[in-house]
Amino acid sequence: MKPEWIAADWGTSHLRVWAMEGSTPIDHAQSDMGMARVSKGGFEDALLALIEGWLDNAPVDVVACGMVGARQGWVEAPYAAVPTTPVQGVPIRVPATDPRVRAFVVPGLKQVAPPDVMRGEETQIAGFLDTHPNWDGVICLPGTHTKWVQVSANEVVSFRTFMTGELFDLLRGQSVLRHSVSEGWDEAAFSEAVEDTLSKPEQLAARLFSLRAADLLHGQDGSTARARLSGLLIGAELAASRPYWLGQQIAIIGAEGLSAAYAKALQPQGAFVEMADATTSTLAGLNKARNMTRETV
Amino acid sequence: MKPEWIAADWGTSHLRVWAMEGSTPIDHAQSDMGMARVSKGGFEDALLALIEGWLDNAPVDVVACGMVGARQGWVEAPYAAVPTTPVQGVPIRVPATDPRVRAFVVPGLKQVAPPDVMRGEETQIAGFLDTHPNWDGVICLPGTHTKWVQVSANEVVSFRTFMTGELFDLLRGQSVLRHSVSEGWDEAAFSEAVEDTLSKPEQLAARLFSLRAADLLHGQDGSTARARLSGLLIGAELAASRPYWLGQQIAIIGAEGLSAAYAKALQPQGAFVEMADATTSTLAGLNKARNMTRETV
Repeated sequence: MKPEWIAADWGTSHLRVWAMEGSTPIDHAQSDMGMARVSKGGFEDALLALIEGWLDNAPVDVVACGMVGARQGWVEAPYAAVPTTPVQGVPIRVPATDPRVRAFVVPGLKQVAPPDVMRGEETQIAGFLDTHPNWDGVICLPGTHTKWVQVSANEVVSFRTFMTGELFDLLRGQSVLRHSVSEGWDEAAFSEAVEDTLSKPEQLAARLFSLRAADLLHGQDGSTARARLSGLLIGAELAASRPYWLGQQIAIIGAEGLSAAYAKALQPQGAFVEMADATTSTLAGLNKARNMTRETV
Repeated sequence: MKPEWIAADWGTSHLRVWAMEGSTPIDHAQSDMGMARVSKGGFEDALLALIEGWLDNAPVDVVACGMVGARQGWVEAPYAAVPTTPVQGVPIRVPATDPRVRAFVVPGLKQVAPPDVMRGEETQIAGFLDTHPNWDGVICLPGTHTKWVQVSANEVVSFRTFMTGELFDLLRGQSVLRHSVSEGWDEAAFSEAVEDTLSKPEQLAARLFSLRAADLLHGQDGSTARARLSGLLIGAELAASRPYWLGQQIAIIGAEGLSAAYAKALQPQGAFVEMADATTSTLAGLNKARNMTRETV
């Protein structure tokens, strides 16, 4: 069945596409041809490889968000500056040679001071706000680069990026801690570690190596070490982002397990946390962006 | 010329050896056969490959310190628990099959709570104290895993390890920041960044990604980014280690450039800092350990 349009979430490491009927996904495909693996000039082919079976002779709209709009991406989609609605104006039209494809990229957002940028999360925020009209508060989007986003009157007012996910991956996979961190989880160790760095953030630097030493000297379990490492880093992030979330209504948009960890970390702080599914938000945001292309193109 | 004995600094990534005449090095060699690259059973060969030319038929003492004494090393040299003199008792004799070599490994130190360990630095500390009798204060040994060590009455009283060097290498070489950090240095940016995290350590998590965004939005120079990254991490370390150094006499034992950066970071805090050469301290410490083997073996 030919879709009405095609949604694409094109990040650094993955390309995920959905065949859409209005706001409903009817088929899905994905590949590891993320922006980082595709060379300039190869984007159209990487896309066609996934959506070929959905095409016929009539041109179809493909609306994409994420790092595909970066300088090294398919086309550089200039950032919109905050404060702004998360998806503002018509997405950028991308030059495609295949006449069956009319491709668009949603621009990211920038903040001049302190300097910060996002690509992809603005679409999830737009999707969330589409189903939560007049929602004011703070949105947390946990991931490789977690974003904390202040939203008011349907605009992104300010935001801040934390490299928590990337730090966790590097420390767990490539630092000396890799010898002491395994799979598995220890809920109590996680909560205790969050509390540790949230109350004494200056101690983070000292506590990381303790995960190695506690293994060498006391045989600390690898799953405990994993939960503690995650808790120490998320606690440090919550200490730094406190001005964002303290006393605010909070929505977490992300993958289920990671969102649950953030919710668990925030609960003892008396925070009211609402959760939203990442993919649902992405598709709702891309649908909103697509409606803008139809109104004006 | 045949040396009187051989000193070896055998760390995770390198093996460095010196032909010694008393306390004076007369020749030097090194290889990248660090503990991490040598498999169990291969340590003797890795050593002989470097020192073969210094051997004749009479057996010679080889005294080594560092990760060679870890569980994955040549022989596990059990940690001595603090408080203790940094090099206590006779080094551990290592079983070597070549009759020309009598090899010894200096044990590391451990601290039960908070859990911490060192291997190699205890030898540098012993060497420093050998030339600074009755020195009381705090020794900083910057490196991949920086140590802060409280010394009193010729004993190591307590210590704490910071993964600052390893974090810097991972963030600079493998995180998203690698696109924005180059070679070079910016002294003012370094000092400003140290001050940033030393005064507001909870902001570290937020400031790292700014190095990327400041490049994308404002074209921040890569050498400025490098100095800022180093400053942010060293500032965070100084915030965590403040109970160690505040109001204390401080000695820095390390490589010249890195030691100078730490001294620069500490100066605005009114700290009195003395510098000692790392290799000189290592050789003095190994000589001290070697004298212990001669007294008793």
